[in-house]
Amino acid sequence: MPDMNRQIVLAQLPQGKLVPENFKLIEQPKPVAGEGEALVRTRYISLDAANRAWMQGATYRSALTAGQVMAGGAISEVVDSKDPSLSPGDLVWGDTGWQDYAVAPAGKLGKLPKLEPITHLLSVYGVAGLTAYFGLLECGQPKPGETVVVSAAAGSVGSIVGQIAKIKGCRVVGIAGGAAKCEWLKSELGFDEALDYKSGELKRLMKEALPNGIDVYFDNVGGDIFEACLFAMNTHGRIACCGAVSQYDGVPPQHGPRGVPGLIVTKRLTLRGFIVSDFDDQREQALKDLQGWVADGRLKVQEDIIEGLESTPRALIGLLAGENRGKRMVKV
Amino acid sequence: MPDMNRQIVLAQLPQGKLVPENFKLIEQPKPVAGEGEALVRTRYISLDAANRAWMQGATYRSALTAGQVMAGGAISEVVDSKDPSLSPGDLVWGDTGWQDYAVAPAGKLGKLPKLEPITHLLSVYGVAGLTAYFGLLECGQPKPGETVVVSAAAGSVGSIVGQIAKIKGCRVVGIAGGAAKCEWLKSELGFDEALDYKSGELKRLMKEALPNGIDVYFDNVGGDIFEACLFAMNTHGRIACCGAVSQYDGVPPQHGPRGVPGLIVTKRLTLRGFIVSDFDDQREQALKDLQGWVADGRLKVQEDIIEGLESTPRALIGLLAGENRGKRMVKV
Repeated sequence: MPDMNRQIVLAQLPQGKLVPENFKLIEQPKPVAGEGEALVRTRYISLDAANRAWMQGATYRSALTAGQVMAGGAISEVVDSKDPSLSPGDLVWGDTGWQDYAVAPAGKLGKLPKLEPITHLLSVYGVAGLTAYFGLLECGQPKPGETVVVSAAAGSVGSIVGQIAKIKGCRVVGIAGGAAKCEWLKSELGFDEALDYKSGELKRLMKEALPNGIDVYFDNVGGDIFEACLFAMNTHGRIACCGAVSQYDGVPPQHGPRGVPGLIVTKRLTLRGFIVSDFDDQREQALKDLQGWVADGRLKVQEDIIEGLESTPRALIGLLAGENRGKRMVKV
Repeated sequence: MPDMNRQIVLAQLPQGKLVPENFKLIEQPKPVAGEGEALVRTRYISLDAANRAWMQGATYRSALTAGQVMAGGAISEVVDSKDPSLSPGDLVWGDTGWQDYAVAPAGKLGKLPKLEPITHLLSVYGVAGLTAYFGLLECGQPKPGETVVVSAAAGSVGSIVGQIAKIKGCRVVGIAGGAAKCEWLKSELGFDEALDYKSGELKRLMKEALPNGIDVYFDNVGGDIFEACLFAMNTHGRIACCGAVSQYDGVPPQHGPRGVPGLIVTKRLTLRGFIVSDFDDQREQALKDLQGWVADGRLKVQEDIIEGLESTPRALIGLLAGENRGKRMVKV
């Protein structure tokens, strides 16, 4: 059926944890590009904790609603173009959703360089890598010798944050779920310490691993881990607020972390929330740095590639449960 | 008894709200200055919400303990000096505590300029004025036309924050307790709006008064008002975290505000905690600006002067209950 387009739609918004039944696979005729638009074929769909946050309500984008094709960023290949800026064969990035084909205005599709493997355009040279880079360096402002802590440390962003912090001469402590991930962070990615929050004794582990406190905390998770790190911050410490994945998959929590805003005052902390597009004007330099570090072997790229559009719902549910190591994506 | 020194000591740390019985007035012989020290006579004691926070535990200074002379900043006059840097008659600022006389190392006493009224050295040209100035301008970074909200708006810091924000061309909304204070903020200090949090309908009042959201929130109180403002912040808004007076007088709260860190991310907020000494290197320029605004009548100085050392405990308890307008101090 070469003229059909498989789409995964949001059958209903989740009530509590996300489940496969919140999605439905349908088939529609392949769409046709109009003036100023392009038809693209999806190659790799990016999976991100933010996908789940979009279902909770308005964030930096409007909330998702039942019935729509599930939103999500992807790398696609232009099949047909009715705009002079794009030609068949071009690789593009855009929020083209969970489907085989999409039609979008050319202005909403960002042309990608040709490099191999193209999956790096979703991981280290994509939103994950740039988020790690800007969040750590711009919001965190780490100095050599300081202690940097990152949560969801084995995830797409966290695994890069920790490695950049090492490149910048910091002591790096990751927080991740499970002994195997923690071992991997230390032996493969060069983290100084990795603490297993599933061990049930995170506070004790933090006390041991952080005798000099935390100077920079890169927060991907919110909740109890955010609170524990807040209490361990040093005077004039910085917290880069990148996400709150512990809070996305369920009903929003009734209370926030203790110590806000009291400890922010007494420790004179700076907390800064950001998304990657806030730093678009510094993108070129960031990509140059990231490419240099990958080339000289100081930055290892970890990708977690799932096969098949139909696997996308389970891949996202698994990501929210912390299954992945590095950047998870679906090859369509 | 000219050779005696009345002292107010912290009889016991408060269990819950601060009460007069937490203090005790005693008399001791007047102390004598040793080498490198000065004997000073207290003129005006500064009362600050932070005095209460110091009883809760370590903040930016070590915690207070039962039995010690109650700590607190004051303006004093040098009576005798065993250090070449100070002479009898000099006015100094220091944490000399709640007592008639104190002996302190000369290095811990800051010489003050001679200006009239000297009470301005505790209010607009003291910690209150400088805290307002640096917190608003450095942490808040307000731009003309933006909306600035300040809590504890009728207090020593808040009343100055709002007026500086008006000078900088912002729309200013104060939050204060009671209709009379709110009326005063508008009619005397030029606030655009003032909202009474004791009305029981702060959220509705905020909705009406803030149709375009909040760009800068200067937080003096923490708790529910912090949370309500966090939810009303605009994208890329700034929160200056100055204090959390709602949290000081009692046991520390079990939970923090909802929306932390989730809203910090989605709205890309910057929160910055500070104390005035973080900006010591910019003090001269700040004082010049403040003096200029007072001189040309754009900044009104409100002082609330209580008489008598023995009144100090009740004056602090009243400040924590929101009795004061502007800077409260005790004339000894």
